[in-house]
Amino acid sequence: MTTRFAISADDVRSAAAMIASVAVRTPLLEFASLNALTGSRVLVKFEGAQHTGSFKFRGAYNRLARIDASAKAAGVVAWSSGNHAQGVAAAARLLGMPAAIVMPSDAPIIKIENTRALGAEVVLYDRETESRETIAGNLSVRRGAILVPSYDDPFVIAGQGTIGLEILSQAAEAGIRVGQVLICCGGGGMTAGIATAIKDTAPATQIYCVEPQAFDDTARSLASGKRESVPKGARSICDALMTNSPGELTFPINQALLSGALTVSDDQVRSAICFAFETMKLVVEPGGAVALAALLEGLAPPAEGATVVIISGANVDPELYAAIITKSGRRNP
Amino acid sequence: MTTRFAISADDVRSAAAMIASVAVRTPLLEFASLNALTGSRVLVKFEGAQHTGSFKFRGAYNRLARIDASAKAAGVVAWSSGNHAQGVAAAARLLGMPAAIVMPSDAPIIKIENTRALGAEVVLYDRETESRETIAGNLSVRRGAILVPSYDDPFVIAGQGTIGLEILSQAAEAGIRVGQVLICCGGGGMTAGIATAIKDTAPATQIYCVEPQAFDDTARSLASGKRESVPKGARSICDALMTNSPGELTFPINQALLSGALTVSDDQVRSAICFAFETMKLVVEPGGAVALAALLEGLAPPAEGATVVIISGANVDPELYAAIITKSGRRNP
Repeated sequence: MTTRFAISADDVRSAAAMIASVAVRTPLLEFASLNALTGSRVLVKFEGAQHTGSFKFRGAYNRLARIDASAKAAGVVAWSSGNHAQGVAAAARLLGMPAAIVMPSDAPIIKIENTRALGAEVVLYDRETESRETIAGNLSVRRGAILVPSYDDPFVIAGQGTIGLEILSQAAEAGIRVGQVLICCGGGGMTAGIATAIKDTAPATQIYCVEPQAFDDTARSLASGKRESVPKGARSICDALMTNSPGELTFPINQALLSGALTVSDDQVRSAICFAFETMKLVVEPGGAVALAALLEGLAPPAEGATVVIISGANVDPELYAAIITKSGRRNP
Repeated sequence: MTTRFAISADDVRSAAAMIASVAVRTPLLEFASLNALTGSRVLVKFEGAQHTGSFKFRGAYNRLARIDASAKAAGVVAWSSGNHAQGVAAAARLLGMPAAIVMPSDAPIIKIENTRALGAEVVLYDRETESRETIAGNLSVRRGAILVPSYDDPFVIAGQGTIGLEILSQAAEAGIRVGQVLICCGGGGMTAGIATAIKDTAPATQIYCVEPQAFDDTARSLASGKRESVPKGARSICDALMTNSPGELTFPINQALLSGALTVSDDQVRSAICFAFETMKLVVEPGGAVALAALLEGLAPPAEGATVVIISGANVDPELYAAIITKSGRRNP
């Protein structure tokens, strides 16, 4: 750890060693059609192929594997709209620990069911009237269980950063120079981790985070220089990115390392999901599609080198996905 | 070429060199969930990531690139329900040749539109009352254009066989021994190509083709020892695999090299498409899902080494895909 930031590139390398034997080295894919459409070279890091269908397993495993043997029996507690939930549940099962996850009652059904199927206890709460922090905090105290934040934790940030190391090595294997990286951003853990990893060895690479327009807290925080919050009642189809404000640990890193923040509308996200279905043949969830949406909408500046787009997750209910790809899910046609 | 078969492993290696700079080396993916479900090690070769969303580009490019400069201007003619159509169209565009494709009027809309978008002329015919062979033959004669068969052509078979070379080298890179390969089968071109490539260097590998139950012509031909046809009027949701009988060139190869043929029902195909959506996060078309369906239904024998499953294509109309993943497309619930 440096004194300035919550994590250093060494922490990401340590995380990579920790998860090497259990996580998927997800593919870095290239599509001629996407290159042609954007007039640039694009590589797609597909975290839908990670265990549990999103990148969250990386950080969760790196956090849980650091827990002392004496503390294992009491297990862990987390809150999550679903991807961190599944990541923690899968890591806990691998490590033989009990896990309780506090999830909003309106989370995608696929995420709730998968979390339960992974052996975790799911505690549902009402997003409008209850506090997930209070529920999780009480659970944690009562059980002596360790609370595992979804982004504001050094081991979690470092775990997500392993994506950055993989991008650099996979691009190098293919003889490609990475010019910029577009990262889906909620609390900023993946963004901070990837930025830390990539800026350490390829400092000229430009890093952009991408948020839903209604949850543009990182964009506004970067503009004002301090952690801003989104107005209460904001909504988006990007359930995985409905974070109120940037993290205490993640924001200073992102403030130092990011070239900027981009935002996309829910309709742009729907179009990106359709593009991935029709052209890339990949299933993408709304929150996992924001970086691709920014690329397809031409929001990313020209890069000197390839543009890497993170597809961060693919856990989407079939009914919503069906509505989006048949266009019946489009609110403003 | 050997004297016995239409192609040899050298022809596949020659095809690999021919397409190396233009085709996608598609990923060979592993899913812990799939391993756990089947109790075996499974690798998935995802040809949805190939240009035009199916493996067909490989054979088409290898065939078209062999056409003499003097014959290029007259172009090519092909018939296809859609994947070979797009493969030929994409290869023709890359090589600067005109292409006309005869397609059934009930082909998936996505396949017709994509073929046109690739610059090919699409000639529609009625599957029940017209002969695609006659229409394509006449077109070919009138224009002096070369007819490009979808499977019964040595260069096409060799091109599809490049998948086999990639599987062997990708598995070797990962330190994995391939025990058996399950291949989606229509006319048997991809099956014959892959079998030729793999049996040459790894003769102990077991190769199985997988067909829709209603189009089990290769299964029945292997049983009887001669090329059998399916009854007229047979139907399947696997539009890409509705081939009447095994090829003249492909069948002798498959007869010599295959360990057997498996068949799956349309409902088993629907279940496999849902599994790929929910768990693997990959879009798969019906014809591309038969090998996965055979694996999921436990039809493949135990293998000594990993089982490789080919997902051969992913061009599916959104309405059909939506109906399948929401289960509303299931005929026998």
